[in-house]
Amino acid sequence: MILGTHDAHCLKPMFRNLTLLRVPVLNFIECPDRGAEVVKCNLQALASFCTSSVMAKSKYEYVRNFETDDTCLRNCYIVVRLDGRNFHKFAEQHNFAKPNDDRALGLMTRSARSVMEELEDIIIAYGQSDEFSFIFKRSSNWFKRRASKLMTHVASQFSSSYVFYWREYFGEQPLLHPPGFDGRVVLYPSNRNLRDYLSWRQADCHINNLYNTVFWSLVLKGGLSTIQAEDKLKGTLAADKNEILFSEFNINYNKEPLIHRKGTSLIWEKIDETTTKQIKVLNEEKEVTVTKSRKRVTAHHCDIIGDQFWKEHPEILEDDGC
Amino acid sequence: MILGTHDAHCLKPMFRNLTLLRVPVLNFIECPDRGAEVVKCNLQALASFCTSSVMAKSKYEYVRNFETDDTCLRNCYIVVRLDGRNFHKFAEQHNFAKPNDDRALGLMTRSARSVMEELEDIIIAYGQSDEFSFIFKRSSNWFKRRASKLMTHVASQFSSSYVFYWREYFGEQPLLHPPGFDGRVVLYPSNRNLRDYLSWRQADCHINNLYNTVFWSLVLKGGLSTIQAEDKLKGTLAADKNEILFSEFNINYNKEPLIHRKGTSLIWEKIDETTTKQIKVLNEEKEVTVTKSRKRVTAHHCDIIGDQFWKEHPEILEDDGC
Amino acid sequence: MILGTHDAHCLKPMFRNLTLLRVPVLNFIECPDRGAEVVKCNLQALASFCTSSVMAKSKYEYVRNFETDDTCLRNCYIVVRLDGRNFHKFAEQHNFAKPNDDRALGLMTRSARSVMEELEDIIIAYGQSDEFSFIFKRSSNWFKRRASKLMTHVASQFSSSYVFYWREYFGEQPLLHPPGFDGRVVLYPSNRNLRDYLSWRQADCHINNLYNTVFWSLVLKGGLSTIQAEDKLKGTLAADKNEILFSEFNINYNKEPLIHRKGTSLIWEKIDETTTKQIKVLNEEKEVTVTKSRKRVTAHHCDIIGDQFWKEHPEILEDDGC
Amino acid sequence: MILGTHDAHCLKPMFRNLTLLRVPVLNFIECPDRGAEVVKCNLQALASFCTSSVMAKSKYEYVRNFETDDTCLRNCYIVVRLDGRNFHKFAEQHNFAKPNDDRALGLMTRSARSVMEELEDIIIAYGQSDEFSFIFKRSSNWFKRRASKLMTHVASQFSSSYVFYWREYFGEQPLLHPPGFDGRVVLYPSNRNLRDYLSWRQADCHINNLYNTVFWSLVLKGGLSTIQAEDKLKGTLAADKNEILFSEFNINYNKEPLIHRKGTSLIWEKIDETTTKQIKVLNEEKEVTVTKSRKRVTAHHCDIIGDQFWKEHPEILEDDGC
Repeated sequence: MILGTHDAHCLKPMFRNLTLLRVPVLNFIECPDRGAEVVKCNLQALASFCTSSVMAKSKYEYVRNFETDDTCLRNCYIVVRLDGRNFHKFAEQHNFAKPNDDRALGLMTRSARSVMEELEDIIIAYGQSDEFSFIFKRSSNWFKRRASKLMTHVASQFSSSYVFYWREYFGEQPLLHPPGFDGRVVLYPSNRNLRDYLSWRQADCHINNLYNTVFWSLVLKGGLSTIQAEDKLKGTLAADKNEILFSEFNINYNKEPLIHRKGTSLIWEKIDETTTKQIKVLNEEKEVTVTKSRKRVTAHHCDIIGDQFWKEHPEILEDDGC
Repeated sequence: MILGTHDAHCLKPMFRNLTLLRVPVLNFIECPDRGAEVVKCNLQALASFCTSSVMAKSKYEYVRNFETDDTCLRNCYIVVRLDGRNFHKFAEQHNFAKPNDDRALGLMTRSARSVMEELEDIIIAYGQSDEFSFIFKRSSNWFKRRASKLMTHVASQFSSSYVFYWREYFGEQPLLHPPGFDGRVVLYPSNRNLRDYLSWRQADCHINNLYNTVFWSLVLKGGLSTIQAEDKLKGTLAADKNEILFSEFNINYNKEPLIHRKGTSLIWEKIDETTTKQIKVLNEEKEVTVTKSRKRVTAHHCDIIGDQFWKEHPEILEDDGC
Repeated sequence: MILGTHDAHCLKPMFRNLTLLRVPVLNFIECPDRGAEVVKCNLQALASFCTSSVMAKSKYEYVRNFETDDTCLRNCYIVVRLDGRNFHKFAEQHNFAKPNDDRALGLMTRSARSVMEELEDIIIAYGQSDEFSFIFKRSSNWFKRRASKLMTHVASQFSSSYVFYWREYFGEQPLLHPPGFDGRVVLYPSNRNLRDYLSWRQADCHINNLYNTVFWSLVLKGGLSTIQAEDKLKGTLAADKNEILFSEFNINYNKEPLIHRKGTSLIWEKIDETTTKQIKVLNEEKEVTVTKSRKRVTAHHCDIIGDQFWKEHPEILEDDGC
Repeated sequence: MILGTHDAHCLKPMFRNLTLLRVPVLNFIECPDRGAEVVKCNLQALASFCTSSVMAKSKYEYVRNFETDDTCLRNCYIVVRLDGRNFHKFAEQHNFAKPNDDRALGLMTRSARSVMEELEDIIIAYGQSDEFSFIFKRSSNWFKRRASKLMTHVASQFSSSYVFYWREYFGEQPLLHPPGFDGRVVLYPSNRNLRDYLSWRQADCHINNLYNTVFWSLVLKGGLSTIQAEDKLKGTLAADKNEILFSEFNINYNKEPLIHRKGTSLIWEKIDETTTKQIKVLNEEKEVTVTKSRKRVTAHHCDIIGDQFWKEHPEILEDDGC
């Protein structure tokens, strides 16, 4: 019973050498407290004289062959989208402002930035409400493109960041319980498909925000119950909603904050950072200006459906012709 | 261009009615600020006169068809295993005790309990070091058995809990940055396979812990450098390690704490809770004893390789004959 | 630019050695007729001086990384089911008898037997009408359990056999065009699931055959048009159909041929074959009886829903407890 | 126990209405011969009073939920490649000429044409030796892009055609047994990837054919044994092989038949077909020339690695920008 190199390749590195050893029989010192059990349980497959735990482990290692490969198709954009679990209730429990809570939006964006800075190859992230999408570049080979690794790591880093940075946005208001997000992976083969995905999310942002803006105006300023507000909006079009906002509440929807109407896009941008340094030249002190260029995650609240944004940031997308 | 019921089925419920409307043309009030762009970008597929954002959204909605179904095969146990990302470094940054830090193990278990209490259908969880496995029951239909949802939700809930409960275990010692965990899903068709999976993890716990116990004894008590300790242990068997522990450090490995040697198993158990209540009977105050039975997550640090544990907890596994 | 052993592993064996060579530059003799083109097309990725076709091939070989792994989960039964494409029309074109054509059923079974004899690890096959299901044993490692290989090979062998053996069943009646079958793979983790799958197909056989027997009696013997027969049967239950058969056509459905009511199950059975041989013992000729046991595919037209069949053939299913 | 519309959607259409009925209890007339068994076997899950076969079937129908979705990612080219099983042996058994048998190549191409004419949406097929690749267009929705259906149907149609058309290419030489092919599906997201795939197969054709041409010249004309020929070619480059062919056998490899050096590409082309018809105009007979344009599969034995072929047939590939 020897472990092949294949079987051993993903053991914790420290012990790799160990498991490759041919273990001698009758290693009775090892674990007297459970030796008997192990022998009984192994009887079918293991000769009764091998009770070494290394051998025992190797006997069970076949279970790794049940893992399946979930490598993402090459040359496609990999999108990981996270959605808050029960965030309707979470928002109420934590008194989120209606229709938009800027602290909550800020925390979402902060957590997304943490994901981008921690994981390689994310070229753009887009968020609105309680969701955030992360796009890995087409040619990324991060985590060998394994879907499960990509999405769980994004979900994990985002969630731990959400709790970690809570205080920065909510101050002394306590977080009542650890929040949950679920995620998924979707692949897009072309730039057109990817842009249409992002357009879909931004159109969704617009539709939801317009609705919510009117709805909560009717409730909070107009004195309607939530049921009355819902009834009033049933069947209305965007134009109707704009009209209600303007005539009843003197709100020009198009002057509402961009962050609420367009959501948040995070990208990597080169920032020139200028500092002054004191240096000595020929025993003389001199002040020198040093400019360093480094990449930083920046937030944008603009339209990403049209071409302008993409023309201004040509580095985000790779060429379709590859 | 009308959205079918199929296309609309997973929109945020509030707006479902909206998207099903037939939107009239030339809804020019909507979003004058980006109308021009939208029209230009849509020219190929959309008649030039429809600029409504609802219609725009419906145009992009085809991108949902790129999502793939990742339903887990029925009648199999679903295992989600989480592993800490760069926890070697994380342990050093946070001064984890060697070879085992009970605060860190406690926090892992607390986070796992949070996952079990939050998610349905987890029948057992097993953890050791920086990993935790969660097993969903064979017949579970939680999240419609969608692998991506299951593993991201577990990863998310675990990670947010890890930060949330940090203080309970580490007190004033600050958490320096949000930690990351990655996960995977593996399916096991039979009880034998599932038990072998858990045996594999517990055998791994044993091998690692024995190694680490000797290694850190050599370093912390024996004064060896880490390289010297590694060299000394190269090629040794379990018996050799037990011998070193006993002769050099007077440690009987089998008396080391069970939590370190066996890891932690979390299961659901019925607990009888007895309380006393004051009630009034015929205007007379009486004290009554009330016993309620409820399910609680309990932790066990015992052998789960042999049959005994499974005989004592027959409710964990379902019958193979289904 | 050297091919690693990994990249070369599935080349046609004959040329494996070739592709592993380090090919020198400027191999201009090779293929002058298309050298220019190759160079132009490769310019981005390939240095302009390598025009060797071996190198050219290695440049394109990255496309293999787009193949995905479709290994079937271990310890599950693998079912490949084939269905005839447009067999309604095919049956009419070839004047199949109604409601059942025994030549066509015989040819289906002959083709299925060819599949079983050609492919390893099929433990049982079940067919009815224009469909056939092949079940690979739970522990099979044939084709490394790759779903695509398994189903395409079954579909291919079945289809070529169907044409190959046509004449044995249809004699001089010509096959008008090559028929098509499509297939799928389904996994079943337990014996119960597998038996329920087979029960499902046999129940389907029963329902269809009862309907067809009445329907074609009404049309062929009762003089009804197909539309009239359909109308008459609308809403009827099994009991009603039995009654029509008995009272109008004097047919006791339960005496109809088993092959039509139960379909065909193919299994491997040990057959003792006895032959006589002339041998010489001490210069004397003697006749000796030799009995050899060998495995053969046998056909059964019995109930496979109940337990009896499985009790009589305990070797078909493996134990669930593995 | 009622079948929902979902469960019934893929029943044989004829019986759909039946299975949707609510079947009354105690339908004892149905199948007395196996009623007892059915009841026994169903006891766990089914109330003992329902013995109707329709109900029995509905009880087993849950097994369909074990089928998994294998839809191919949208907007990608779908490649199905077939390979002959054991064709080395098959070629020997049927005395294929060395190094190329034009009858066998013709039959492969004829079978591939049958596939193209029978299945929708194949835009190009490329074959060499005992393999053939079929490329479905990017936007194809044939078989709802289900990988298993696509590859099994291609494998099936190809295999039945191979036997069906055997006689056209091999005349009276009998086909000894039904041949087998296996297949796989690979997705390519861009035109570049797809062309590189086809280039890879054509480069493979070239390398194999050059080797085989020299090898069989050495054996058949040079009198070497196959082992001697293999040894002689070990380590040789394309230039060396060209040199052997020219100096020892007076063969200019570049004048060898294109079909052997380049393989066979099948595409759809518009063909103008001109016929003459007799028509009557004002009681006068007139002969009229009628030209009809229709699509036909045409074979090409040219380079498909360079740009020329693709420029001449711009209709094959769709634009990457979609």
